[in-house]
Amino acid sequence: MIRIGIIGFGYWGPNLVRNFSLVDGCSIKIVSDLRKDRLDLLKRQYPGVATVNLSDNVINNKNIDAVVVATPVSSHFDLASAALSHGKHVLIEKPMATSVAEAKMLIDLAKKQKKILMVDHTFLYAGAVQKIKSLIDKNELGNINYFDSTRINLGLFQKDVNVLWDLAPHDISIFSYLFNKNPLSVQAIGVSHLKNGIEDVAYLTLRYRSDLIAHFNCSWSSPIKIRMMLIGGDKKMIVYNDMEPTEKVKVYDSGYILKTDEDKRKILVDYRVGDIFIPKVEIREALFEMAKDFIKSINAGSDPISNGALGLKVVKILEMSQKSIKQHGREIPFK
Amino acid sequence: MIRIGIIGFGYWGPNLVRNFSLVDGCSIKIVSDLRKDRLDLLKRQYPGVATVNLSDNVINNKNIDAVVVATPVSSHFDLASAALSHGKHVLIEKPMATSVAEAKMLIDLAKKQKKILMVDHTFLYAGAVQKIKSLIDKNELGNINYFDSTRINLGLFQKDVNVLWDLAPHDISIFSYLFNKNPLSVQAIGVSHLKNGIEDVAYLTLRYRSDLIAHFNCSWSSPIKIRMMLIGGDKKMIVYNDMEPTEKVKVYDSGYILKTDEDKRKILVDYRVGDIFIPKVEIREALFEMAKDFIKSINAGSDPISNGALGLKVVKILEMSQKSIKQHGREIPFK
Amino acid sequence: MIRIGIIGFGYWGPNLVRNFSLVDGCSIKIVSDLRKDRLDLLKRQYPGVATVNLSDNVINNKNIDAVVVATPVSSHFDLASAALSHGKHVLIEKPMATSVAEAKMLIDLAKKQKKILMVDHTFLYAGAVQKIKSLIDKNELGNINYFDSTRINLGLFQKDVNVLWDLAPHDISIFSYLFNKNPLSVQAIGVSHLKNGIEDVAYLTLRYRSDLIAHFNCSWSSPIKIRMMLIGGDKKMIVYNDMEPTEKVKVYDSGYILKTDEDKRKILVDYRVGDIFIPKVEIREALFEMAKDFIKSINAGSDPISNGALGLKVVKILEMSQKSIKQHGREIPFK
Amino acid sequence: MIRIGIIGFGYWGPNLVRNFSLVDGCSIKIVSDLRKDRLDLLKRQYPGVATVNLSDNVINNKNIDAVVVATPVSSHFDLASAALSHGKHVLIEKPMATSVAEAKMLIDLAKKQKKILMVDHTFLYAGAVQKIKSLIDKNELGNINYFDSTRINLGLFQKDVNVLWDLAPHDISIFSYLFNKNPLSVQAIGVSHLKNGIEDVAYLTLRYRSDLIAHFNCSWSSPIKIRMMLIGGDKKMIVYNDMEPTEKVKVYDSGYILKTDEDKRKILVDYRVGDIFIPKVEIREALFEMAKDFIKSINAGSDPISNGALGLKVVKILEMSQKSIKQHGREIPFK
Repeated sequence: MIRIGIIGFGYWGPNLVRNFSLVDGCSIKIVSDLRKDRLDLLKRQYPGVATVNLSDNVINNKNIDAVVVATPVSSHFDLASAALSHGKHVLIEKPMATSVAEAKMLIDLAKKQKKILMVDHTFLYAGAVQKIKSLIDKNELGNINYFDSTRINLGLFQKDVNVLWDLAPHDISIFSYLFNKNPLSVQAIGVSHLKNGIEDVAYLTLRYRSDLIAHFNCSWSSPIKIRMMLIGGDKKMIVYNDMEPTEKVKVYDSGYILKTDEDKRKILVDYRVGDIFIPKVEIREALFEMAKDFIKSINAGSDPISNGALGLKVVKILEMSQKSIKQHGREIPFK
Repeated sequence: MIRIGIIGFGYWGPNLVRNFSLVDGCSIKIVSDLRKDRLDLLKRQYPGVATVNLSDNVINNKNIDAVVVATPVSSHFDLASAALSHGKHVLIEKPMATSVAEAKMLIDLAKKQKKILMVDHTFLYAGAVQKIKSLIDKNELGNINYFDSTRINLGLFQKDVNVLWDLAPHDISIFSYLFNKNPLSVQAIGVSHLKNGIEDVAYLTLRYRSDLIAHFNCSWSSPIKIRMMLIGGDKKMIVYNDMEPTEKVKVYDSGYILKTDEDKRKILVDYRVGDIFIPKVEIREALFEMAKDFIKSINAGSDPISNGALGLKVVKILEMSQKSIKQHGREIPFK
Repeated sequence: MIRIGIIGFGYWGPNLVRNFSLVDGCSIKIVSDLRKDRLDLLKRQYPGVATVNLSDNVINNKNIDAVVVATPVSSHFDLASAALSHGKHVLIEKPMATSVAEAKMLIDLAKKQKKILMVDHTFLYAGAVQKIKSLIDKNELGNINYFDSTRINLGLFQKDVNVLWDLAPHDISIFSYLFNKNPLSVQAIGVSHLKNGIEDVAYLTLRYRSDLIAHFNCSWSSPIKIRMMLIGGDKKMIVYNDMEPTEKVKVYDSGYILKTDEDKRKILVDYRVGDIFIPKVEIREALFEMAKDFIKSINAGSDPISNGALGLKVVKILEMSQKSIKQHGREIPFK
Repeated sequence: MIRIGIIGFGYWGPNLVRNFSLVDGCSIKIVSDLRKDRLDLLKRQYPGVATVNLSDNVINNKNIDAVVVATPVSSHFDLASAALSHGKHVLIEKPMATSVAEAKMLIDLAKKQKKILMVDHTFLYAGAVQKIKSLIDKNELGNINYFDSTRINLGLFQKDVNVLWDLAPHDISIFSYLFNKNPLSVQAIGVSHLKNGIEDVAYLTLRYRSDLIAHFNCSWSSPIKIRMMLIGGDKKMIVYNDMEPTEKVKVYDSGYILKTDEDKRKILVDYRVGDIFIPKVEIREALFEMAKDFIKSINAGSDPISNGALGLKVVKILEMSQKSIKQHGREIPFK
């Protein structure tokens, strides 16, 4: 039985508690938060869980095997490194850390301590992403030509990080998981409409070998909520619309090769070349699957899907994007 | 009665013929096309219109007052300058020309000849665009912070121009019409998946004073057709979805100013801050309105909405975008 | 070359003229309409077509082989029977006539005169309907359990016929074509909100053997336009949404047989049991195909898809529905 | 502090426990269910709640003030009447009982015992329904002409009740709440495709004075999930689409009065007569509001919104619908 301590019971904390409380083989023993009202709320629903104000009481706790860090990103490094140093397995909310240097130190420390270090990139465990992963792994799409993601809504303007650090980790982690290669370069453009230097609208572009391009449109200033990814292969293309309740993943023929004039005429009429297929996607709570993977990895001593290396890649791309934004979109080589 | 000659009866030609034949105060006298089967098709529906193979027979025609150039873009300059030289009013399909130099020469020639020079940026005449223009002119949106346009579909891969030259003229002309300022800079990123140097996926960014940013996502390689523009003001925001049959324009509160914690909590729940308004938009064929504006401008000697200056600006931005694409997205100052 | 005369150039007339002018093997010679402005409009676009005020000049015309009757329904019988009597083939707009008695007389007269009698149930020729027909004919759906159609919008309140006579002919003809059986009974419910005895909201139900039920929801008083049919078979089900630009027909697993508790649990989560398939549908103008079928049938002496017998069945169901409405939905046996 | 006991921890039970545990002024003391695994699940998340197998231990419990009956409908009467007899306030899942006779006895018993009797018609507390109620109460819609509801999905085929008893209580309770009148008559049509006499597809029609008609389309056999209500007034009309994440309620002009021919022409083009308005709707968990109303009513001795009288009306309409279905849709007067 893995005994879990959770640091931070804010926006995401209740979801973590609810899901870990349902996973077999683990038990939430203690939760810390500086705010009394948050702990009161927890007590009400989970009277069996101990509550404390200070995170030290979680980290130092002898009866805890694993620590979940669900605090603002600026505190991730300190809390995670302390927990690893005390011999705990660690799960960190995304993004993993505020810099590549921090992320690397955490990975090294986990290796040295022989503990699991995992990042909560929840979406990797969504049924839709798993379905797309299996289609790509079976080479149904052929060579991948582009990835185009839009994640925009009217959002809370964060005070410490820009919109890419806030929203793009989802898309970068998904694409990095689907397509396990390093980009050649990173470039980003963004503007801040609050005049505080924190971009609320930003566009990120990654280039890969073979003319693969990945583009991410992120905004806190959109009146409508869009969660849409297009993945274009030369055989098939996928539209993943996460706002759709049940038809999240649609698979289309690519139609790059239009041989005859008749083909050309047809495409002008309805912009379609073939049948469309909407696979049945496992509907499940992604966070529950993520929690299971954490416990499973601890027990097996194996690497989780959402491991430190993936978390590091996300942080590295974000760090480079920030550099590029400040240089008006200059292309920064990824090395 | 303005007597019209049309050069080119390809994809767009039938629409031009149908609409000009319905406009009061003009009459289509002659149409030229090199292809016999196209002229046969025309004859069948419009037996009263003369047909010829050579464009010279339109341009030199003494009984013609105005010439419509509906041929591939590479021939626009030669045909339009010849027609202007022969004292004809000229309407050119978009984009106006293949270079800024050509576009400027046409404007100068029209000025010298005292003839109307108009570019068929049809969308400016759409009911939705006219409605948005009136909302902006009444300052309903407040300061405009961003413009974000997506125009993607599975398209015919053009052989001579890239996807920006093909699709972006619509969006650039709309935004230039709505927001009558010059950008500070142009930058663009694109890739060619057909390995022929002609980009099929491209992203264009324009920067303006006061942190206004305009971003255009254009693709011939999308399995689905999207025609969506977001226009963000600090008071109101607009979503213009041209694929919606009747609810094309939606107006939202901006919600930049979230004063209380309660406001913040609410926005996390449904990402909305206020009521939404869907104005009734005049449903009309934009091309018919464009044709009327051409005839009206000839008769009044006045400037049409879609005039040469607007056409030139579109060509200038396209020309700069091409330069930027070849330099991997370098920011090019607009001067 | 079949020489065509058209009676009536109102709302639908221009579509008929445009399409017949594109069909090989026929030629529109003359069009009649009582309104001068309608004929002027025609003249402008089709100077080669003769125009007359009186329908007699079409019906008596020696140089005409076939007559298209595109007038209000109350005049269909007189015009069509006169045209048949003069030895013309006849195409009538839907619905064919105002009563079963009239429809039968027309069928008898056409038989006696050995002329083609066709009704313009345009939708039968739509790519989506043809695709559904082919799926049903291949028994992809299994036994058909229900047909549920919604055809509602904010409409012109007709002065002479109720909403069922106006809108339901589309759905009745489609269903009768797809499922070529007679109903056991007809019942209908409707109300008139204009207090003139003409129902603007009505519901029609047809029962067939084996518990097949067809239900039609028709309204002129809906603020939104819906054109949706559900066809439920015990193997597959179809959703035909005519408002969708390209994904009109979707094919679903039926999921009637849920064997395990796990199956039951799953369906509660996302109400789906399998993959969804969106076949490519031929995009074509249905009216053009209808026009071709008329000419083809005349030339071959064969029965068109949208023949008199189908037109009669539609009228019979409408006539019975009216009787049922006036008796508050009493079930009327179809005999 | 109201002490609550809950009978039944099946599909809906966890939602009840979660919401009542968050309502101020009450505390869940005990939950009964015959199934051990259900109680184990409860224990895991709510170790502070007592669990028992037999409902008697809840009903007889001296330390309980109020009982929530969340069991199959056939047991509602016995459990609720026992609880009332033991002096408990009672909340019953919908529908309230299996017959009008039972429902009336429960109402009489609650009156005699001076206890609150409430039915969990959750939807009455949804933000969208509350918004529509306020629009109707302010007479924004004018006279109501029709109510048209579609509630269809691929569903679990119930073994004891038909699709109307299963799904229509939502719509009947909403409409009864919005429009507080008794119908003149009830009629219903339905078919059973499982050949067990339990209808899986059914249509229910209620008639009211002044030609108001309410129609309910309910199905367990639809491949897609639809939750849509149209409410037509002579001034405004409402579309309530519960599948929309944020734009659930849209308000339209009615456009019954089309005075000019120009008006008529326009409506043929886009079927719209005016602007559309999407009010901001309070996003909240309806079940939480329902739970609050139960506690508030107990404390104040006042009638809840979803009271016994409303529950009775729903049962009465269902009972009559069943009678009508068996008589093939005969109109049954409501008395």
